[in-house]
Amino acid sequence: DPKLKVFTCNANPELAKEIAEHIGVPLGNAQAVRFSDGECQIKLNESVRGCDVFVIQPTSAPVNEHLMELLVMVDALKRASAKSINVVIPYYGYARQDRKARARDPITAKLVANLIETAGAQRVITMDLHATQIQGFFDIPVDHLLGVPILGKHFSEKGLKDIVVVSPDHGGVTRARKLAERLEAPIAIIDKRRPEPNVAEVMNIVGNIEGKTAIIIDDIIDTAGTITLAANALVEAGAREVYACCTHPVLSGPAIERIANSKIKELIVTNSIPLTQEQIIDKITVLSVAPIIGEAIIRVHEELSVSKLFD
Amino acid sequence: DPKLKVFTCNANPELAKEIAEHIGVPLGNAQAVRFSDGECQIKLNESVRGCDVFVIQPTSAPVNEHLMELLVMVDALKRASAKSINVVIPYYGYARQDRKARARDPITAKLVANLIETAGAQRVITMDLHATQIQGFFDIPVDHLLGVPILGKHFSEKGLKDIVVVSPDHGGVTRARKLAERLEAPIAIIDKRRPEPNVAEVMNIVGNIEGKTAIIIDDIIDTAGTITLAANALVEAGAREVYACCTHPVLSGPAIERIANSKIKELIVTNSIPLTQEQIIDKITVLSVAPIIGEAIIRVHEELSVSKLFD
Ligand SMILES: Nc1ncnc2c1ncn2[C@@H]1O[C@H](COP(=O)(O)O)[C@@H](O)[C@H]1O
Ligand SMILES: Nc1ncnc2c1ncn2[C@@H]1O[C@H](COP(=O)(O)O)[C@@H](O)[C@H]1O
Repeated sequence: DPKLKVFTCNANPELAKEIAEHIGVPLGNAQAVRFSDGECQIKLNESVRGCDVFVIQPTSAPVNEHLMELLVMVDALKRASAKSINVVIPYYGYARQDRKARARDPITAKLVANLIETAGAQRVITMDLHATQIQGFFDIPVDHLLGVPILGKHFSEKGLKDIVVVSPDHGGVTRARKLAERLEAPIAIIDKRRPEPNVAEVMNIVGNIEGKTAIIIDDIIDTAGTITLAANALVEAGAREVYACCTHPVLSGPAIERIANSKIKELIVTNSIPLTQEQIIDKITVLSVAPIIGEAIIRVHEELSVSKLFD
Repeated sequence: DPKLKVFTCNANPELAKEIAEHIGVPLGNAQAVRFSDGECQIKLNESVRGCDVFVIQPTSAPVNEHLMELLVMVDALKRASAKSINVVIPYYGYARQDRKARARDPITAKLVANLIETAGAQRVITMDLHATQIQGFFDIPVDHLLGVPILGKHFSEKGLKDIVVVSPDHGGVTRARKLAERLEAPIAIIDKRRPEPNVAEVMNIVGNIEGKTAIIIDDIIDTAGTITLAANALVEAGAREVYACCTHPVLSGPAIERIANSKIKELIVTNSIPLTQEQIIDKITVLSVAPIIGEAIIRVHEELSVSKLFD
């Protein structure tokens, strides 16, 4: 059988190490460094000839550096005769640029899919895409993993009572329902409305949250504006306490300050994106996606070996 | 006839402005900005429907930011129904990764060519590619402009006497010969040799330079190690004075310090890459490539209009 090898670039080496341990292989010997002028140099220090190779690299910030590292790594693996090149992108950057929201917008999520295929990737494993349509941007197989089981397990083990799962907007209702099913809880939805143009948005809560333990769920928390306003609105409307969770802790700009100052009791995230030193605060709990990604890699490798289709 | 429009991203807006002025069109209204998390956002603020569009963007440092801006801009132009998308890349980054110099090296110059085509570019205008083979990495027309005429004109106008043009290595002899022909001067070559392993390189000068005004020419000056060592070797070997020139002033790391402390009397570069504030020193003279790029754009636009092939 072709050998399974796991490589990483610089976006999340800790996660890659955990995944390799879960699978029971050493992390491949390769480095993504920089020339003096900032150009990316990939040093592939071991043979990959005939191997099924998995590259772990979320395209988190600095997104353009991490994306380019991934593309150059895939190019190097292709030219080094890897049997299959599988890219594992736990967080898919540029996912929010998935449609022409305004005239003459680019659709960068599609561009990135094309770039990844052009470099030579033959399969993608990713998690909680901002829009599931992005799977269709690829012409290669995409395995789409979900964060809800991991987040749900954490909340189940906490033994919280009288829960309501809250979607911070209309787009997130399906995700909220999935978590609610696991926790056997009802859902509520925050309905943001601007009563008149140039008047501040009003946070309308649809559903019964009074006296309950609210858990807000989103795919990405970026500047944390939406989620902290939602948490405060829930407390004002009578929620007993408010938890928040997401798969992808982007946490840019004022995010940490907003979370620290908000009514959120605890924020649960995954390690699809590593936290920086400044992002590690008491309120934030990190759950690992290494086991589910590791399992997905093992399954894909088995399927590749027996030349069967996945699923 | 389809309208000609010129756009720029952030790599060299001053050059783009000069080029637009040379052509006699206003610079197109577009911006490359960043979202809070560092993702690139292209704002295309005017219609390009049915237009021949030229995007000016050297892929200079920070190369991955500038490359991604270019790709997203091309995606936006494509989806906004531009008639033709022509990318003007005065300095082509990653050009030195043009072959497998070591086992398992990527060929990033080819990868970048593929990425640019995948985004939707239909023609490339570039200057002094580190290897002319890179033209063959594209399956779309490439117009390859040369810096030698601009550099040669500058030296001619200086009225220097008893010149010898020096190539700093074997790879640059063709370029040196072209400049020498314009200046009606002989050439010399620096022949770097390592006498034994782990012994410092010796700079052997092939050709007569004694008492002469030496002009060293290269395509790229990056850390300036080669060129400053060459200049000092020439002076030690009896050259009267040493000028240096190149098309692309990458000037990374210790470059400016080395140039300042070297025996180089004057360094002539072009504005294919803009100099940063710290890179502007008395010894360095910048010549503009805007006229020759402007002329190339005018010619391409004419040819596109009459549907003839270029050259
Ligand atoms: N990195 C980003 N940060 C903030 N907003 C973004 C980003 N990328 C895309 N967008 C915008 O987010 C909107 C899409 O978000 P959504 O409505 O949640 O799918 C669009 O208007 C995009 O222009
Ligand atoms: N950005 C860069 N900075 C320094 N060296 C590079 C860079 N890109 C590629 N190289 C190396 O430069 C060599 C090619 O340069 P050359 O022999 O001048 O064509 C190869 O060994 C490359 O690995």
